[in-house]
Amino acid sequence: MKTILTISRQFGSGGRLIGRLVAEKLGIPFYDREIIDLAAQKSGFASEFIKENEQKLKGLSTYAHTAPLWGGGLWGNFDNFESRIYAAEAEAIEHYASLGGCVIVGRCADYVLKDKAECLNVFIHADIESRAKRVIEVYHDESDEKRAQKLVRDADRLRARHYRYYTDAEWGDSANYHISLDSAKLGIEKCVELLVRAYQVVEESSKEE
Amino acid sequence: MKTILTISRQFGSGGRLIGRLVAEKLGIPFYDREIIDLAAQKSGFASEFIKENEQKLKGLSTYAHTAPLWGGGLWGNFDNFESRIYAAEAEAIEHYASLGGCVIVGRCADYVLKDKAECLNVFIHADIESRAKRVIEVYHDESDEKRAQKLVRDADRLRARHYRYYTDAEWGDSANYHISLDSAKLGIEKCVELLVRAYQVVEESSKEE
Repeated sequence: MKTILTISRQFGSGGRLIGRLVAEKLGIPFYDREIIDLAAQKSGFASEFIKENEQKLKGLSTYAHTAPLWGGGLWGNFDNFESRIYAAEAEAIEHYASLGGCVIVGRCADYVLKDKAECLNVFIHADIESRAKRVIEVYHDESDEKRAQKLVRDADRLRARHYRYYTDAEWGDSANYHISLDSAKLGIEKCVELLVRAYQVVEESSKEE
Repeated sequence: MKTILTISRQFGSGGRLIGRLVAEKLGIPFYDREIIDLAAQKSGFASEFIKENEQKLKGLSTYAHTAPLWGGGLWGNFDNFESRIYAAEAEAIEHYASLGGCVIVGRCADYVLKDKAECLNVFIHADIESRAKRVIEVYHDESDEKRAQKLVRDADRLRARHYRYYTDAEWGDSANYHISLDSAKLGIEKCVELLVRAYQVVEESSKEE
């Protein structure tokens, strides 16, 4: 196996779980936390710091209130941090991709590996109601449905911004992915089945070449 | 079978062929020309006129040069024609969908049937180079590759505009479809296989409900 399955996903769509299950069924590695740890080694940042700040998801809310104290200077530093985290994660992604077929979730891996590895790029999405419900159930979030929907929308907005900033392409535009699936319509299990089959198809055709 | 498989597709992506093959494998009807003929009956327009003018694809190029002669008035008439064609086709789509599971290609069928039928909405796309090549090969178009690429881009632009006009959503945005597939990456035959399986999945789960 040499194909790298990259999974981009809307928050709450179950994309991470789908990726893990596909990797299990195919018997290939699933890289998630490992990317953070290797990026930490490469950048000198602590793993926890990277986890908190990759994609500015938590970063903005953690630091925003302190900005006035620093006369806005922290924003400059923060941008700098984020670029260094991105670069270190990109290096980690390239390293793991060089080891052979695997599944990598998020972190613009589709873009990082463009023209560098044989990839099958996947996008997992679902309607906002299903995702809010999933956030409440799976993450034991105690939000009501309305608050959960806001959480999901905010996370989407940040992921879209992050993706656009680094890749200059639109997050979620079907043209950027080889397969996009609606996990609410098809169900997690069936998405896994379809992706396992698609992965095999791409592997077979790359052997034929 | 009761699920309606709607296929939207980029020009030259092979989406129509994929739809026909999926319908054959599933043993359900594939509606294409039938929609035009029924829309003709319902609207009083000739089938050939509808074929020429649906989606303004040929319409604009056919009439654009005559607009100055008519002081622009023809544009108003043309818009009116197009709306009437759209309405007649929508009626035809609803009629065929009411008969049971089938495959319908194009004509905003995903939007027309929203909340009216159990649908599996699919988008087929491919990179511009593959589509230009396909246009030259399959349609025996004698364009060179560059001209074929322009043809493909123009057709995309018109389809996107048409879709946006009637549905108020973005054509090709993965969120509008349950499955989006890159036919150049996966190959026509494998797209057919994946969609047949996805159709069966949706049918099974709608029986469980």
